[in-house]
Amino acid sequence: MSDAYVVGVDMIKFGRFPDRTVPQIGAQAALMALDDCGLTIKDMEALYCGNLGQAAGMVGQRILQEIGQTGIPVINVSNACATGATAFREGWAAVKAGLYDLVLCVGVEQMGKGLLGGAGGGSGISREGLLGSGTMPSVFAEAGLEHSRKYGTTFAQFAKVSVKNHHHSTLNPKAMYQIETPLEVVMNAEMISYPNTKLMCSVNVDGSAAAIIASEKKARELGLMKRAVKVRASVLTSDPWQERDLVMPDVNSCTRLAAKKAYEMAGLGADDIDLVELHDCFATAEILHYENLGLCGPGEAGRMIDTGEVALGGRIPVNVSGGLLSKGHPLGATGIANIYEVATHLRGEGGKRQVEGARIGMTHVIGLGSACGIHILEKA
Amino acid sequence: MSDAYVVGVDMIKFGRFPDRTVPQIGAQAALMALDDCGLTIKDMEALYCGNLGQAAGMVGQRILQEIGQTGIPVINVSNACATGATAFREGWAAVKAGLYDLVLCVGVEQMGKGLLGGAGGGSGISREGLLGSGTMPSVFAEAGLEHSRKYGTTFAQFAKVSVKNHHHSTLNPKAMYQIETPLEVVMNAEMISYPNTKLMCSVNVDGSAAAIIASEKKARELGLMKRAVKVRASVLTSDPWQERDLVMPDVNSCTRLAAKKAYEMAGLGADDIDLVELHDCFATAEILHYENLGLCGPGEAGRMIDTGEVALGGRIPVNVSGGLLSKGHPLGATGIANIYEVATHLRGEGGKRQVEGARIGMTHVIGLGSACGIHILEKA
Repeated sequence: MSDAYVVGVDMIKFGRFPDRTVPQIGAQAALMALDDCGLTIKDMEALYCGNLGQAAGMVGQRILQEIGQTGIPVINVSNACATGATAFREGWAAVKAGLYDLVLCVGVEQMGKGLLGGAGGGSGISREGLLGSGTMPSVFAEAGLEHSRKYGTTFAQFAKVSVKNHHHSTLNPKAMYQIETPLEVVMNAEMISYPNTKLMCSVNVDGSAAAIIASEKKARELGLMKRAVKVRASVLTSDPWQERDLVMPDVNSCTRLAAKKAYEMAGLGADDIDLVELHDCFATAEILHYENLGLCGPGEAGRMIDTGEVALGGRIPVNVSGGLLSKGHPLGATGIANIYEVATHLRGEGGKRQVEGARIGMTHVIGLGSACGIHILEKA
Repeated sequence: MSDAYVVGVDMIKFGRFPDRTVPQIGAQAALMALDDCGLTIKDMEALYCGNLGQAAGMVGQRILQEIGQTGIPVINVSNACATGATAFREGWAAVKAGLYDLVLCVGVEQMGKGLLGGAGGGSGISREGLLGSGTMPSVFAEAGLEHSRKYGTTFAQFAKVSVKNHHHSTLNPKAMYQIETPLEVVMNAEMISYPNTKLMCSVNVDGSAAAIIASEKKARELGLMKRAVKVRASVLTSDPWQERDLVMPDVNSCTRLAAKKAYEMAGLGADDIDLVELHDCFATAEILHYENLGLCGPGEAGRMIDTGEVALGGRIPVNVSGGLLSKGHPLGATGIANIYEVATHLRGEGGKRQVEGARIGMTHVIGLGSACGIHILEKA
């Protein structure tokens, strides 16, 4: 199997676009990613599309109606919050298979109103499917409290995650928000489900992101290696019953399994990673994932946020994009938006938020139900 | 790229199962396919699941909750009536990529009541997405009438497709119906949209089918080559605007493009095919596809049905399973049910409906919106 490279990648500025259709929103990112590498839809050999809210709606084909119908295969995937990562991974697999030399991967979501979003709302989804055993906020609150009980993690430590990510997004023009949120503001915001206040919940926004994956041969042939990013590992897991823990098995054991496999596939360890975009759907979740991804040992996550190790300029910056908490979380788009963020830093194009000298980065998403997607990317 | 083989495949008897869940229905076929080759879920390295009605509902993961949660990647896909074929193809691509040696592909659907089924009903699907420019029956009626205008195809010729497929399914214990429908019965049935009467519309049923795909190395290692079926071609296309025709571009040009690519990939021609399971969602559609798939020349489809060339015992038997018209059409399951049917004949296990000496077979599905999936299979 030859290597596969991200040669073009972009995302729209996340926001609210109630007056546009899902395909129109997805088409915009697709065209931006094509522009990013100077290619057109006619160069693409397949389209992998991730969307949750209209999962049965042939969104990929409808995007082609917006940007050019060339007859290429379209694969529409959904995997809760891992939807975008799954679309990217299926495109990567096809290039690795030698089926195609150039594929387009698009993730897009137009969210409904309210905390949980409208994805899957009317499509017979089970509570287990998207909501877990309760509502999203209560499930992730419980998981945070379990961490507090075991390791003494404090409300302030959870809140600092939000302070950090909101600060990061002041440097990211594509994030939904560019507003500093001091600790007291985060802690005094409306309590959604203790210990997560409203500013510690991911932002419900519309958005899209797209990536173009090329075989090494094609990337070289097109002269695209200079800004190319190598996919060192692409891993997807589901809930492993054998490793079940009582709180958040989907999130914790599923992520730990994926991280283990990703490091194996890449032949790397956590120490080799220069930046991470992880699934901070709630502030409590980010704390859990420092440990799940092996960025620190069990019970050390509170220290990670206190010392600033995970902030821009720290040992291992996490969510320098602003993360789901401030950049926003359009479910089907998030997995590819993460790829965009990490690729941008590996290319040295991160502007004010650039992680200096970044050579290797990791993306992580997790969908309840369950699906965890991890990618490790490296500067080509 | 090494070859990939179907080593296990099965389907449930199609029917109506309102008292069961979609994952339960899918799990049944998955277990049957595993039994077919003596493997267990622990042997599977990934799951590719196709479903339309609960496309955002993590159906693959919920199937694993029924049959064993091993932590494997789960990819949920949807592509209108090409959903099952897309799931199969993504599994095939992963094996070709060398990512996995053994994968499980499942297609499942629990249909709503009425002619159009409930798939995608509440999920914000566009009219173009599932319905085309009108209702399904009217769209396929129009396409049949266009064929009549161009080539003089008669109402009786369309009706004979239904007579043939209903006769075939009397020999298939897994088909929904085992009832002969003489020509006068078909022609005098309730008129849905001329020239398709009720017996010329696909049967709205629940169902599931599953296939296990193995790398050649693994198939040999496990001693499964004797009943294995080689995947000679796997093609997926979308609507090619450049070849647009006015009536049914999704169905006609999309299928012609897929057939061309499939014959190229397999290095075969239509003359090499011993049996075909094609997308007879309406009797008129089957007529169109004889020509779209190159089984005969333009305007010769009426003759094909008159001479019996496409009946069991004829030159190129089509839909010996009973087809969508009589076996039934659970949308997300159909693509893999077709694989089951063709594999069964290549294995020489077709019983009363066995196509004698079958060595190479083709499956075809088409989803409006648009997606055409074609597979060419060969006796290993």
